[in-house]
Amino acid sequence: MEEIRVGVLGGGQLGRMMSIAGHNIDIEVIPLDPKGILSPAGQVSISAITGSFKDGNKINELVKKLYRPGDEEKKVKRVITVEIEHVNCDAIESIELKDVEIYPSIKTLRIIQDKYKQKKHMRESCLDIPMSDFDEIKSIEEGKIFGERYGYPYMLKACRGAYDGKGNYVVKDEKDIKNGLGFLNTKYVYAESWCDYEKEIAVMILRSREGLIKAYPVVEFTSKNSICRTTLCPANLSEEMNSRAVEIGKNVVKSLPNGAVGVFGVELFAMRNGEILYNEVAPRPHNSGHYTIEACGCSQFESHLRAVAGLSLPKDISLRVGVSMMINTLGLKAKEEFMRLLDIEGASGHWYGKEELRVGRKMGHVTICSNDVKTLRNNLLIVKDVLND
Amino acid sequence: MEEIRVGVLGGGQLGRMMSIAGHNIDIEVIPLDPKGILSPAGQVSISAITGSFKDGNKINELVKKLYRPGDEEKKVKRVITVEIEHVNCDAIESIELKDVEIYPSIKTLRIIQDKYKQKKHMRESCLDIPMSDFDEIKSIEEGKIFGERYGYPYMLKACRGAYDGKGNYVVKDEKDIKNGLGFLNTKYVYAESWCDYEKEIAVMILRSREGLIKAYPVVEFTSKNSICRTTLCPANLSEEMNSRAVEIGKNVVKSLPNGAVGVFGVELFAMRNGEILYNEVAPRPHNSGHYTIEACGCSQFESHLRAVAGLSLPKDISLRVGVSMMINTLGLKAKEEFMRLLDIEGASGHWYGKEELRVGRKMGHVTICSNDVKTLRNNLLIVKDVLND
Repeated sequence: MEEIRVGVLGGGQLGRMMSIAGHNIDIEVIPLDPKGILSPAGQVSISAITGSFKDGNKINELVKKLYRPGDEEKKVKRVITVEIEHVNCDAIESIELKDVEIYPSIKTLRIIQDKYKQKKHMRESCLDIPMSDFDEIKSIEEGKIFGERYGYPYMLKACRGAYDGKGNYVVKDEKDIKNGLGFLNTKYVYAESWCDYEKEIAVMILRSREGLIKAYPVVEFTSKNSICRTTLCPANLSEEMNSRAVEIGKNVVKSLPNGAVGVFGVELFAMRNGEILYNEVAPRPHNSGHYTIEACGCSQFESHLRAVAGLSLPKDISLRVGVSMMINTLGLKAKEEFMRLLDIEGASGHWYGKEELRVGRKMGHVTICSNDVKTLRNNLLIVKDVLND
Repeated sequence: MEEIRVGVLGGGQLGRMMSIAGHNIDIEVIPLDPKGILSPAGQVSISAITGSFKDGNKINELVKKLYRPGDEEKKVKRVITVEIEHVNCDAIESIELKDVEIYPSIKTLRIIQDKYKQKKHMRESCLDIPMSDFDEIKSIEEGKIFGERYGYPYMLKACRGAYDGKGNYVVKDEKDIKNGLGFLNTKYVYAESWCDYEKEIAVMILRSREGLIKAYPVVEFTSKNSICRTTLCPANLSEEMNSRAVEIGKNVVKSLPNGAVGVFGVELFAMRNGEILYNEVAPRPHNSGHYTIEACGCSQFESHLRAVAGLSLPKDISLRVGVSMMINTLGLKAKEEFMRLLDIEGASGHWYGKEELRVGRKMGHVTICSNDVKTLRNNLLIVKDVLND
């Protein structure tokens, strides 16, 4: 049988859960992370490379690690994938990859890692992907024009390197534009017209090397300081809005190049008028898909590995419990909260093993599965104070 | 918050799944195994000790590994547990353990690791634990007396060191006794009268440090060459037989000393007349409890760790899918079989990462969850040849 080795750029919690999923189906995951074998992913992996996933030399080292003495005598499949989209695409392209394949492809990563380019790509695709108005902002003047055209408040966002709400600024009025441009600390920014959504939702889309596309169930999620706090699946949406979300999610991934292989976390806005608008996409397992570990036929992490490694996609990625809620445990009190949540009926914990507690940092999450929403609400009563926090 | 470190004697697949469960709830698992960090458990652990779990010096090294510089400044809980009962109890007792606790206790292990002593213990307890007749056999003469009293065939079993059917011999008739005694290759053997059961069933029993006892759902299982091949949960039993199995399972664990803490795999016979008879118990997670990872509110591995570490027991260990079947993938063709099983709807794989394929060796398992038995049977049609093998 074939051996499969997957190098992962990044070794955080996504890489950790990917590595565990890999062990389970005999795919060896090797993370590249500044903390090496002490990173969240490194701790659960057979080996790791210590270094930055932006450092070409280190990426080269990771590629070399996929080759071993004795490989001539067996069939080995070698893949590089990512747990974060902000990798150094130029560096990767400069490396001699021999038979190592990269999924999602560099072309896909380049489109997604630049949020402005990403949105333009979606708008210009011939596919049905509705979204709010947006434009690049190169000066206060352009910011004013945007405000006049689409109204205040609006969002000002850094085009590159942003995640978990970092690199976002709410422009309240004309006078606030200067503050926004200063706050973002980069010249390459764009504005998005205000989206007065009812709730934020997300759908994990899975694409195989052959272009087969599958969708996980839609979740709704809440955020605190722009960091995901909870997800609920199934999302409380009309059947129509639910199908629309899946349709748009699939269109987003269809619009990407053929090399867009793996799991894609598509974030959407559910509007009060019933519309669904596109927000953004991540080319990897996503926080809003953590619930899939316990709640679905196959987790997003295993699905991602199967897709990038060219195995068949899992047959069943539907919800196999009545309802599931995921709660991120963040910041300095994360461990206390984690232990309390673990005591809830139907709770499963995932601690990330990060050395250092930091304000707002994702330290772990707990997923609670119940037969129905009423039971879930009841089970959650003992942590009411945590959830209201 | 308290740090929890658990040293595990043994580093096979049970230790591996225990270590992954540990990561998820922030319990550090450190296995002791001849293959060290390359053992199934070592591969997924932050560190491991290389050596035999029967070697006192190595156990001592494991104990020392539970202490680290800087520990004075924090609260640390240190525990030793087992993934196999055939450990060296004398060696463990000779080690200075300081504040390291051992669960299940040595007293418990001593009772269980000697099958004859184990059965006598159960028979002599004042609890209701029905079982077949048995007696120690010191000579061919005693073997004949046993045969005359209880009939042929009967089972001849090695009292110590036996598992997965190793150390069992079916005595066909009087003339066969000599062969049996020779085959078992030890003088310390006992006979059990023949149990013409309808099916073999098992129940995982969980006991906390405080003596709280909980039971997982009952499973039925099939064996091939005395090695577990499949488990099915829920077992196809009358409600009465099912409750009786749980009752006996709980009695078995109740009969053990107070230090009997953790998960206990109780194997039982479901007789054609509706009776349930006790067969044997393992003081650790058990092959017939693997299904709990996907199918129950909390896996046997996490439950075991929570119990031995003195955390609260999980609130929900009930079945949260309609039905689940676990299939062991054994021997030289294990990987091919594993990949095929993985393709079934609702399948989750657990590959053990063992370096070497060997005939009959447990290389991995796949658990298939479905809404109902009919769907399960349908889903299994594509691997009919595997299951009939």
